[in-house]
Amino acid sequence: MTDRTHDPSLRSWVESANDERTDFPIQNLPFGRFRRARSSRAWRIGVAIGDQVLDLRAVHELCPWDDAAQRLLQPLAEGDLNRFMAMGPVARRELRALLSEGLREGSNVQRLLEACLVPQSGIELTVPCRIGDYTDFYAGIHHATTVGKLFRPDNPLLPNYKWVPIAYHGRSSSIVVSGHRVRRPLGQTKGEAEMPQFGPSKRLDYELEVGALVGVGNTLGEPIPMAEAEAHLFGLVLLNDWSARDIQSWEYQPLGPFLSKSFGSTISPWVVTMEALEPFRRPFLRAEGDPQPLPYLDSPTNRERGSIDIRLEVLLQTQAMRERGEAPHLLTQGNFRDAYWTVAQMLAHHASNGCNLQPGDLFGSGTQSGPEPGQGGSLLELSHGGKVPVQLPGGETRVFLLDGDSVWIRGRCEASGARAIGFGECMGTVSPSP
Amino acid sequence: MTDRTHDPSLRSWVESANDERTDFPIQNLPFGRFRRARSSRAWRIGVAIGDQVLDLRAVHELCPWDDAAQRLLQPLAEGDLNRFMAMGPVARRELRALLSEGLREGSNVQRLLEACLVPQSGIELTVPCRIGDYTDFYAGIHHATTVGKLFRPDNPLLPNYKWVPIAYHGRSSSIVVSGHRVRRPLGQTKGEAEMPQFGPSKRLDYELEVGALVGVGNTLGEPIPMAEAEAHLFGLVLLNDWSARDIQSWEYQPLGPFLSKSFGSTISPWVVTMEALEPFRRPFLRAEGDPQPLPYLDSPTNRERGSIDIRLEVLLQTQAMRERGEAPHLLTQGNFRDAYWTVAQMLAHHASNGCNLQPGDLFGSGTQSGPEPGQGGSLLELSHGGKVPVQLPGGETRVFLLDGDSVWIRGRCEASGARAIGFGECMGTVSPSP
Repeated sequence: MTDRTHDPSLRSWVESANDERTDFPIQNLPFGRFRRARSSRAWRIGVAIGDQVLDLRAVHELCPWDDAAQRLLQPLAEGDLNRFMAMGPVARRELRALLSEGLREGSNVQRLLEACLVPQSGIELTVPCRIGDYTDFYAGIHHATTVGKLFRPDNPLLPNYKWVPIAYHGRSSSIVVSGHRVRRPLGQTKGEAEMPQFGPSKRLDYELEVGALVGVGNTLGEPIPMAEAEAHLFGLVLLNDWSARDIQSWEYQPLGPFLSKSFGSTISPWVVTMEALEPFRRPFLRAEGDPQPLPYLDSPTNRERGSIDIRLEVLLQTQAMRERGEAPHLLTQGNFRDAYWTVAQMLAHHASNGCNLQPGDLFGSGTQSGPEPGQGGSLLELSHGGKVPVQLPGGETRVFLLDGDSVWIRGRCEASGARAIGFGECMGTVSPSP
Repeated sequence: MTDRTHDPSLRSWVESANDERTDFPIQNLPFGRFRRARSSRAWRIGVAIGDQVLDLRAVHELCPWDDAAQRLLQPLAEGDLNRFMAMGPVARRELRALLSEGLREGSNVQRLLEACLVPQSGIELTVPCRIGDYTDFYAGIHHATTVGKLFRPDNPLLPNYKWVPIAYHGRSSSIVVSGHRVRRPLGQTKGEAEMPQFGPSKRLDYELEVGALVGVGNTLGEPIPMAEAEAHLFGLVLLNDWSARDIQSWEYQPLGPFLSKSFGSTISPWVVTMEALEPFRRPFLRAEGDPQPLPYLDSPTNRERGSIDIRLEVLLQTQAMRERGEAPHLLTQGNFRDAYWTVAQMLAHHASNGCNLQPGDLFGSGTQSGPEPGQGGSLLELSHGGKVPVQLPGGETRVFLLDGDSVWIRGRCEASGARAIGFGECMGTVSPSP
């Protein structure tokens, strides 16, 4: 069977999925965990299609598909995305083909699937899966360079940067989904005074990142070779790695960031699968003069198509803008193609010491700043370390975030010959310290 | 009701619990998760008593206790320690009193409880609970000083050390219980050559740590004040934070240790509760000239009894020693009283930014080296950074661990007027790289 699921001419009988502005045309089909708004019912797994959600529990109950299809749907019908993640890419492709056919114009199950649709306007969403461990990489070389310059003007990148996919373990428990408020953290900071002080962070920032979710895991002690790395990836989300810069600069030596990050991280609720991203894969190239990756981080597939073209944006809406009814203001733009390491390299590196990855584990990409000034993926960069205020509409300025500020991250994939897809919303609003 | 559970004169009808060398007298009563060896049955929660385990599922079924007792036992009977952890210290004390009475000489339920005993020689153990997030602190000031000297002879302790309970997020998935082999990790290292290389770590080390498990959690955004911190702690285990020093020194800047740690961490299977540790609590004192903790890390209770007296040991048995039938060799001794921060301070600091702690979360204490030379809690310290070989019986030496080496961590609490208790075994054997 030829995979027609990316065919840009495909149209869905869900009319809103054919609108060219939607993030969720029939070529996307991302997974999320939802329930009716203000209900206390169990979370269900669904697939976004236009402005609707296809409830996979209902599909499992109503659809006259064969046993093989029912086996794929079983964990999803039980609300357990992790178990489906563990089933791997072949299962994922089979279900994708089935859903794509069922949602197409002229489908012979349209009447049945219509009964499984829930409008997105009537649902609430949560994190799509159980995230056992969260690891945050540092694969944004422009971010690492710009931030490095603030500390070491002559030697911004450390000697390991171009060899090692640098990362640190993050905090899983405080990962929330788009829409949750993020409370300004209290913390210990050190200014010019002799003693440190404890109080609300004064340098609260966002970080523009992409998140990758692990599908199939590996056994403790058994690395995953680069040639197999892609098969262990499930899909991508957007990630805002909120950061308290003043807490970070005082706490981070010698063991890295801790409380400056663990007060909250926001992800987008819909997981865009590796299959949906196929048309947007791009060659992974090293700039001239940069070292080639060591063999354990190299493969022909990675060279040919390791990178992914995702246009990224950050938007800010202040309290005052909201009160004036003003739309969020575009702060910066970047592209995930600029990441210094691919998600397959992150995964192979992570497992290279035998560390066991598990279905639902999350990797952050590190801040994805663009190469140009003004393309910083954080306020730290845009405000030159808090020294140059960023101008906003209506005469407001920001060096760091104030209470009431809302931050959006957006991601969209576009390529000639392909239907554009998007990631949906990744938004959070800063609320005051306790 | 007076709490008689610590009374050193208490004796159990389980005869082995009255042996003064046992780690598990009736005054201890630690929780673990076990099943019959080589069975594939569900894991059960049990309490260690002498050389036996009291199977709490069997107790729940057989014992004629009232509804209140049955409610305490319910989650334990289902094999879920986390739900019991979430019930807090009052529930824990009630169950402790009940089990202590039932296991005492002269108990009126002896006959029933006898039917719930399983010999420890016939069981296997696993990690006692689901560990959602693992955080490793750096509260061993002698370790931090000695290791700091290797890098910065004139300025070993960084300026933040005496103010901030330094920590980093660790890897949860690779935490294993005593007895599991630990595979020597592959990794990227940088020697004198121009290019880094990839291969088996040549500087594999252990770290002597104590682990604290969280009981009741907190809501995201709501810090836990110091005055309430103790009530959120469940109990302690021993922890070996295996470390690959050559991978660590190349990867750790600027975001801290990652693959040098995440290949495996070993904990002891029995959780010694905060109640069992009562007789071994000691005042928390700052050395003269050291700053007092900031108010958010200070409380009268913490000053009076924040520290815990646990005698700690590391023992090593090489392959050759094992073949000669030689007992493990004592490498070092320390005491958890020397920790620069108490477990309550670690917890209050961790939640101070609003980070949500969850039942079963694990904190490592950082390497607990003693103040004297020769009391290093790692080979890195004992071998002066790999320069001075440590002498072993039979003419062997070590600068770092070789394949086949087994490392034990032991912990024991002794105090006048109290029955001594111990932590059981925390052992791991190094196996070769893949």
